[in-house]
Formats: sequence, C-alpha cells, structure tokens
Amino acid sequence: MGLKSVRVVRVGHRYVRDYRTLTHLCLVSRALGAEAIYLEEVEKELQETVGEVNRTWGGDFAVVEGKWRRAFQDAKADGRAIVHLTMYGTPLQDDVADLRKHDSFLIAVGGPKVPGEVYRLADYNVAVTSQPHSEVAALAITIHELQEGEELKKVFGDYKLRIVPSAKGKRVEQKT
Amino acid sequence: MGLKSVRVVRVGHRYVRDYRTLTHLCLVSRALGAEAIYLEEVEKELQETVGEVNRTWGGDFAVVEGKWRRAFQDAKADGRAIVHLTMYGTPLQDDVADLRKHDSFLIAVGGPKVPGEVYRLADYNVAVTSQPHSEVAALAITIHELQEGEELKKVFGDYKLRIVPSAKGKRVEQKT
Repeated sequence: MGLKSVRVVRVGHRYVRDYRTLTHLCLVSRALGAEAIYLEEVEKELQETVGEVNRTWGGDFAVVEGKWRRAFQDAKADGRAIVHLTMYGTPLQDDVADLRKHDSFLIAVGGPKVPGEVYRLADYNVAVTSQPHSEVAALAITIHELQEGEELKKVFGDYKLRIVPSAKGKRVEQKT
Repeated sequence: MGLKSVRVVRVGHRYVRDYRTLTHLCLVSRALGAEAIYLEEVEKELQETVGEVNRTWGGDFAVVEGKWRRAFQDAKADGRAIVHLTMYGTPLQDDVADLRKHDSFLIAVGGPKVPGEVYRLADYNVAVTSQPHSEVAALAITIHELQEGEELKKVFGDYKLRIVPSAKGKRVEQKT
C-alpha cells in the first residue's frame, strides 16, 4: 500500500520561534512520511537541521515558509482534506473512518492562539483526546491513524546512513 | 476494555532541564492514560504545571523524582515489561503483538546519551521508525499501540473543566 499524501502546517502558536518544538514538528512530519511542513517563519538554523537530516538519512522532506492561509488555499485548490488538530474538536477515533476516505491531507497543528477562522475553514476539527498535551504527539497519532501504520515502514531514498534494527545495541550501515 | 498499566521514565537526555520537552512528556503520558513518569530531577515549576493540569482536567497522574535505575528495578519487581524506545531498536510494528501479551509496562524514553546498560536491561528495544524525530512522538505512538486506541477514550475523574467535543468552535463545561 502506498502512503497517502500528507502536508503539515503550524498555526497560532504563541512562540513563533520555539526552536525545539518546531524541530520536533519537522522531524516527526518527515519521519512519518509527510512531504512538507509550512511554517510562518523559517529560521536558517532550522532549515539547516532538516537539510542535514535529509542528506544523512534520506528523502526530500521540505520546510516551506508561508502563512497558514496560503497553505489552506493551496490545500483547497488541490482537493486536500484540511484536518485541524485541536483539543476542542471531535474525537479522532470517531472521525477516522471518514478521514480515511480521503487520499491527501493538510494537517493543521494548532496552538493556544488559533484564529476562529481556522476552525471554520478546516474540513475537520479533530481532537486527539480532549486533554491538554502536545501538538507533536497529536500530529504523530493522527498521521499514524490516517496511514494505518504504513508510515512506519517508509523507506527513505538517497541516504548516507541507515540503521539496521537490532534487539540490543546499535547498528548503523554506511552507504558504499 | 480497561487500560493497561503504563509508567514512563526518561533516560539519558542531554538537557536534563529541557523544560518544554519534559512538560510535553509529562502531559502526553497523562493524557494517554499513563499513571506516572519518573524524572531524574523534578523542578518545582514542572511539578506545579502538572499539578494544575490534574486539578483542572482531572485524574491523579504523578511526576516522581527518581533515577532510571530505580525505575527499572521497581519495574522488574512488579513484573512490568520494560520497553526502551530507541531508533536503533526493532520496529514497533514487528514487536507489537508480543508487547500486547503484557499487562503492565515501563516505557523508557531514550535520548542521545543513553548508557549501554539501558539497552541490556530493557526487555524490548523498540524503534518507532529508524529515523531521527521526537521522543514525544515515539512515546505517543507506542502507548497508542499498546493500548490499541483505548487510551483515547479515557475519562478523567474529579475535574473542574471538561471539553465537550464539537465540530466547529470551542465548548467547555464547568463542573457544578
């Protein structure tokens, strides 16, 4: 089974430059097979970190500078389902069967300062529990459900290093 | 179906005091139905944040100050399966059927400086993809798989506020 097309956008965060959370959002999106993430501001350091991960571990995950509104417009034009993650939304487990009918998604990762418009423009407002926790965790579980676990098997092309899974210890293979 | 008993411990992190990641690990553990997290150092601010979340949103999730070695010993004494999350481990999707045979777990969330002993003492070294991403995401997907999605339905007792899930907008109910 191929993966569905997933893009991610971050909206309404208090800390535009929360470097660690941004990095986690980028790397989780990439590791779980998303194609790109849209961020309002992309600092050089973040772009370099993600570029280095691509070069070392493979794939061509993209960090795109752009406003959420632009990402939403592109998604509508592409026929992507817009899934806004918010603790106020309807339970993921109730929506998942409907969501899986779509082939491509824009997942909007919300924060404390999301404009009301995001709720109205999204096709789905989805809650990964109605408890406060982490946008990184909510994103991960949502992608995992949309892709039905297939994302964990993704093979990244054009890598320099590859981990050989092992029950104890660390094995890393270098591409020759 | 009841939830399995899950505890979490953080091992080998570079930034013992990375407040944001620590908070996310605590809140994700709580939201996904774990009972407690062990941290090497618990700063007052973190304890207060988690305490406030418990008082507002319910439940009695605990943050316990303790070394990982102590958490591992307790787990062995309790018969908990110790699951160490590491990108070097065997794929979660290959281990999950085995893991689900256990009723209680200690999940060790690894970082860049995990001692080799952790790999040896863990019952399972599990990879949520062999790509670099986020311990918060790896923890979330692992709990989601161990609990088979049941964790998303957890009801928290003794809350002040409760979200009423809605397709658009925000509804919060205050306990009277």
